[in-house]
Amino acid sequence: MLLTQYFLSIRAAQHKEVQESSSIYTKKQISILDMTDQETPENVASTPAEAPVRPKQASHRGRTVGPIANSNKEHEEIPEFEPFMLMPRGPPPLTEYLDVWDVNMLKQAYEENKQRHHTHLYHCDHLIVRRAQEFLIKITFNRPFKPEQDKFAVEFSIGAGAQYSKGTYIPVFPTLERQSVWRGQILESSENVVTMGITPASDCIVGKYRMYIAVVTPYGIRRTRRDPRLDTYIIFNPWSPGDSVFLDDEEEREECVLNELGIIYHGTYDDISERPWNYGQFEFGILDACLFVLDKAEMPLTNRGDPIKISRVASAMMNSRDDDGVLVGNWSGDYLYGVAPTSWTGSVEILLDYAGSGGQSVGYAQCWVYAAVFNTFLRCLGIPSRVVTNFFSAHDNNGNLKMDIILDDNGKVDRSRTRDSIWNYHCWNECFMARPDLPEGFGGWQVVDATPQETSDGMYRCGPASVAAIKHGQVCYPFDAPFVFAEVNSDLVYYTRNKDGTLHPVRVNTSYVGRLVLTKAVLDKGRREITDHYKFPEGTAEERRVLEKAEEFGCQREKAVVPQADVEVEILAREVQRGEDFDLELNFTNHSNHQRVVDIYISGNVVYYTGVPSAEVIFQTLEVTLEPEQNKKEKIVVRNTDYQSKLVEQGNLNFIATGKVQETGRIITTMSVVTVHNPKLTVQVTGSPRVAEEMYVTVEFTNPFKSNLENVYVRVEGPGIMSINTKKYSIIGPGNSITWTESFSPRRAGTTKLMASLDCAALRQVYGEVEVTIQP
Amino acid sequence: MLLTQYFLSIRAAQHKEVQESSSIYTKKQISILDMTDQETPENVASTPAEAPVRPKQASHRGRTVGPIANSNKEHEEIPEFEPFMLMPRGPPPLTEYLDVWDVNMLKQAYEENKQRHHTHLYHCDHLIVRRAQEFLIKITFNRPFKPEQDKFAVEFSIGAGAQYSKGTYIPVFPTLERQSVWRGQILESSENVVTMGITPASDCIVGKYRMYIAVVTPYGIRRTRRDPRLDTYIIFNPWSPGDSVFLDDEEEREECVLNELGIIYHGTYDDISERPWNYGQFEFGILDACLFVLDKAEMPLTNRGDPIKISRVASAMMNSRDDDGVLVGNWSGDYLYGVAPTSWTGSVEILLDYAGSGGQSVGYAQCWVYAAVFNTFLRCLGIPSRVVTNFFSAHDNNGNLKMDIILDDNGKVDRSRTRDSIWNYHCWNECFMARPDLPEGFGGWQVVDATPQETSDGMYRCGPASVAAIKHGQVCYPFDAPFVFAEVNSDLVYYTRNKDGTLHPVRVNTSYVGRLVLTKAVLDKGRREITDHYKFPEGTAEERRVLEKAEEFGCQREKAVVPQADVEVEILAREVQRGEDFDLELNFTNHSNHQRVVDIYISGNVVYYTGVPSAEVIFQTLEVTLEPEQNKKEKIVVRNTDYQSKLVEQGNLNFIATGKVQETGRIITTMSVVTVHNPKLTVQVTGSPRVAEEMYVTVEFTNPFKSNLENVYVRVEGPGIMSINTKKYSIIGPGNSITWTESFSPRRAGTTKLMASLDCAALRQVYGEVEVTIQP
Repeated sequence: MLLTQYFLSIRAAQHKEVQESSSIYTKKQISILDMTDQETPENVASTPAEAPVRPKQASHRGRTVGPIANSNKEHEEIPEFEPFMLMPRGPPPLTEYLDVWDVNMLKQAYEENKQRHHTHLYHCDHLIVRRAQEFLIKITFNRPFKPEQDKFAVEFSIGAGAQYSKGTYIPVFPTLERQSVWRGQILESSENVVTMGITPASDCIVGKYRMYIAVVTPYGIRRTRRDPRLDTYIIFNPWSPGDSVFLDDEEEREECVLNELGIIYHGTYDDISERPWNYGQFEFGILDACLFVLDKAEMPLTNRGDPIKISRVASAMMNSRDDDGVLVGNWSGDYLYGVAPTSWTGSVEILLDYAGSGGQSVGYAQCWVYAAVFNTFLRCLGIPSRVVTNFFSAHDNNGNLKMDIILDDNGKVDRSRTRDSIWNYHCWNECFMARPDLPEGFGGWQVVDATPQETSDGMYRCGPASVAAIKHGQVCYPFDAPFVFAEVNSDLVYYTRNKDGTLHPVRVNTSYVGRLVLTKAVLDKGRREITDHYKFPEGTAEERRVLEKAEEFGCQREKAVVPQADVEVEILAREVQRGEDFDLELNFTNHSNHQRVVDIYISGNVVYYTGVPSAEVIFQTLEVTLEPEQNKKEKIVVRNTDYQSKLVEQGNLNFIATGKVQETGRIITTMSVVTVHNPKLTVQVTGSPRVAEEMYVTVEFTNPFKSNLENVYVRVEGPGIMSINTKKYSIIGPGNSITWTESFSPRRAGTTKLMASLDCAALRQVYGEVEVTIQP
Repeated sequence: MLLTQYFLSIRAAQHKEVQESSSIYTKKQISILDMTDQETPENVASTPAEAPVRPKQASHRGRTVGPIANSNKEHEEIPEFEPFMLMPRGPPPLTEYLDVWDVNMLKQAYEENKQRHHTHLYHCDHLIVRRAQEFLIKITFNRPFKPEQDKFAVEFSIGAGAQYSKGTYIPVFPTLERQSVWRGQILESSENVVTMGITPASDCIVGKYRMYIAVVTPYGIRRTRRDPRLDTYIIFNPWSPGDSVFLDDEEEREECVLNELGIIYHGTYDDISERPWNYGQFEFGILDACLFVLDKAEMPLTNRGDPIKISRVASAMMNSRDDDGVLVGNWSGDYLYGVAPTSWTGSVEILLDYAGSGGQSVGYAQCWVYAAVFNTFLRCLGIPSRVVTNFFSAHDNNGNLKMDIILDDNGKVDRSRTRDSIWNYHCWNECFMARPDLPEGFGGWQVVDATPQETSDGMYRCGPASVAAIKHGQVCYPFDAPFVFAEVNSDLVYYTRNKDGTLHPVRVNTSYVGRLVLTKAVLDKGRREITDHYKFPEGTAEERRVLEKAEEFGCQREKAVVPQADVEVEILAREVQRGEDFDLELNFTNHSNHQRVVDIYISGNVVYYTGVPSAEVIFQTLEVTLEPEQNKKEKIVVRNTDYQSKLVEQGNLNFIATGKVQETGRIITTMSVVTVHNPKLTVQVTGSPRVAEEMYVTVEFTNPFKSNLENVYVRVEGPGIMSINTKKYSIIGPGNSITWTESFSPRRAGTTKLMASLDCAALRQVYGEVEVTIQP
């Protein structure tokens, strides 16, 4: 490489951007890299000496000294020569001083930097390293480096107006006597090549830095011209005790930072289903897309060293409310103008769409899509994170610990007056970080939730809220802890409505909400219950103390003492396949030693996973006579024809049985959600499972129903082995089958999955997957 | 009044809105009342049986059971007859049961309700009462009320889907045995008239309720037809110990709830100016406009009993960022498409414009306009509040306790690298409330700030943050305490920049920022210093402990020990009138017993009130020789011609003197802001100062400058006596005068002010005022 390619024609303070004529980017996602790398025409200042013009934004004039640096893509060129004195004729030829011929970032996946920094999986042409850990570069000079006379610095800069005091400009010095906030040292010097070790500060800004080598001469500083190939990404480091996201458990780090394969739990607590998910945090373009999300949020660069602030900003940016964030929420069942939430199989397509379109929100998401894409974002930037599922989640009620179900005079559910709904499940994220902003004891896992709470005071961001603080009822600490506390701790209160419009509580169920909190087990395909991270066991003294503590901080509970009925009823759950008739079994127990006659109403509704009722499926009344101490079962038949045509996307039926004991007038209640299971996709793999060899995946499906399925979309993808593929079938007739085979070449070795989804308006949430182990 | 006007034709569940054909509203602001009272065509459901259609909003389908009630204007009619049983032929004639002939809300300003509830000042045709305090209504029946046989309830409802468990529907019963959450009692019963006392719950929703009287018959409930004249506003009650905004000081309540006249401090801490302001919280239409702000925010009604949530939502809604809130911020000097921030004299025009246009943001605001309009909002709803001014406010730095000033090698300010700016002053609000969401001790005054912090992580809302928590460094409690802490506690750090781009601190000034916090004195025209509410005195042990506590919670300070120079310099302030030449006096002190020679740079810049520099006015270098222990003054002349043409709106000049002591190499610095005072307006009043008599106000101004003033706007208004009047002069030539006389008729007695402003691009912030006492 020629000297002239690396060095400027010696001229002071040249501000013009020199466009690279030969691009090194040949990938399809070139557009994203364009965005982060190059000035778009409207961003180019008309006069080079001025600060970049930022159209479509409020003027900063009078408000701040200059525009605040809030983007990885904006920058001003650092001058290639900075004179120390006035030089009317320009600087003299600087032939006797150190000159840079080449810089080697050691950025290949197999090289030491990426291996030791756990960044070898990123599919990216740049060096990616983590904070608070040394990485190496090799600099080739024009002659051997002489420490006693040669002075140079490796300079990193990020964003516009880079400045040392803001952490956006950092020179790294090779001498022990002279160090900046990033440590530098020469590890080896042989012939013209110097190997330098550089350790970014443990709290430095996370993002894409430009790198220069600056040599000090008596006349001024001369530095290498900007070279995009030297751009370096610095991300969070859960492996370093100095970093505030340090997680001291290698297996957890491998799961919560490095694992691209996810399992997201859904269904109901007694009939749990799994969704496979491709987080794809290492796919080509994803890291750029994640930084683009923060740039789009106009988050000041100076705040981007703080995982608390980054996760809070991102929780707002994952949804489109307020800020044109990544995903548009839609629970309506009408997904004509986008992709149905149940159809996605991974985050890659979503993030690349968003960044590739310059920030057009992508449709559509429900809670697990928000959580899954947020998880990709966090893992990609190096913040340990996982998706958790809370079964029976009290939502939308903003710190009030009551969910109301209104019964009429006779004990029958008044669906028009019951406005609260309990989500069958809700997904959010936990991310791991220290909390220096709180008293001791609240670091560790933090809840962040990107699902917009449109009904709770317009919360379009949530968290980070310390899981430990929630467990101990210390809901007085930021951010949004009372909201999360209510999601797992609310009581279900049944009221009867008097003729005069007032209500009085007749039953309080304290164990229904927050029944089970699950996440994927570490490096395992199984599930892990973490309910005990959020609360003490039901009925213990600790639990009572925690609820009292939360009440001190204004969380309101139902205080009325409700007399217990001496008769109990429960609905026995069972697994149901779509298309089946099934029995609903009611189990009555008379705890008294008197005869009891119970008038009972059983109402079954198709519900969304948000607990919101759609159509009624059955409604029956029963009179049940129970002898003293008797236990008795009653069966109700639910026919396929009752529910089949009414089902909405996730196929949940909510049964409520309520009634009155004739002798005592007491109200008895129970509630149960039954999931109707859909048929599955068959996914099979053939071919030689080796890196770069051709393989084939076959997806098969048979329509088991008596009607056509129309406009059916099938998706298949596999982390590290196959990008997303989509195929549309206009119609699949009753009993008809489809078979779709695609070829692919695995990019890397290891055990991974191919996952497929099938989606159409009449049948959603059909999944299939197969595990494959690729040999090197 | 006829029975038929009050009662419905007995027919079950009639949902149609009956439009009032004869309006009782004759005021100019009819459009605002329209908005809150009547369905606009696009809000009317096409089929009456369905829930109201809410266009332009995300569908709630699948997400919630129904649309969430979040507006005072939406409602469903409560049926005028609710049968207890099936009645195929309709209910029988109910002639023998109690019948309502008339309801008297006792809502005149002179009547007991408004007097005892401190709401007599509201210019409003409806009853306005406060929570947790009894008010009276008189019901005239068709015959004497018989307590043993007649059953009735007074019903209050707010918003759509009103429901007892949500606090949006409340029946009030007259019998002691049967009470709801609002207490009711019969105080007097004579002939057909019953006087009933009603006490709203101390935590009830604040807003506009509809009122009905419901009579129970054996066949069902029949109730009065909706009558807009019975609509009742319920607001916060600082006079009641039960209300969470209770403020136990009558004088403070009178100032912070009932005073419409404000003084807002500005200028610099050693040359304080005053802005008079008409908060106008009692003006016609303002209460409706304030409720409209919450409706526009789509704040769920169920949360509107909580002053913490209301003040937080309103802090976001006062600015237009994110949510199309009330005011558009603009610091640029270009106010062509709106009103210059310095031109406003009160909040009334702004709030009526906003609500009257259905929520079009109003231009333009800077910090005191946000604070003043927010103050109107809070006082209008009954939350005690005041505007405070913090002189030298560290802004935009989000919890970092350093404001950086960068000097070059020689000690000269490097203006291009100094990005932080300290606001000469910043205005925010304090509001008074309990904080049940925090541990004990943090109730009382709370900081809320509506000025958008575009540069601090996109904060478009701020607070409530407990003032006590800020004083004690307990910044771990919500909301946004670290930000406010930094505004009053940051250090000014002077760095010199080395040739290699690194910086090292050379001076730390810990007393510059947060120099003085002022608010208007209670019921007085003077000022009140409340700096000690925010911090302990400089240099005390408590102060040190507080700073350490805040650092524990992540607030970063400069820790370097900076050697002190033995020479000091200060700039002596003086008052300057616009157009004058003036001397800048520098005071040097040599504390050593050696001779010292100081090279000093004096740089003067025109600055915005945000501390952001505009043009440079002077730049001089001096070499000063000081004998041992000598004190020496040096003068620098600043000419009118140097600064006159460069001044920006608030006419501030910022002088920085920095330099190096030759013998020791130590850096010395000082900074001072000089306010250039503008000419004043003369305001005079003539005529007989009595209620409803004609009076005249005359505003006079003479252009003292040598150039024309073009497109000059003059405004004048007076709380309770004169609505806003605006006049435009195309040109006022040099030395020319204007005289403007307007007539007005005072609406109420008492001492008040007429305040005027004059504004044009070349001359802003010209005020005048006159006090008048109106006799009854």
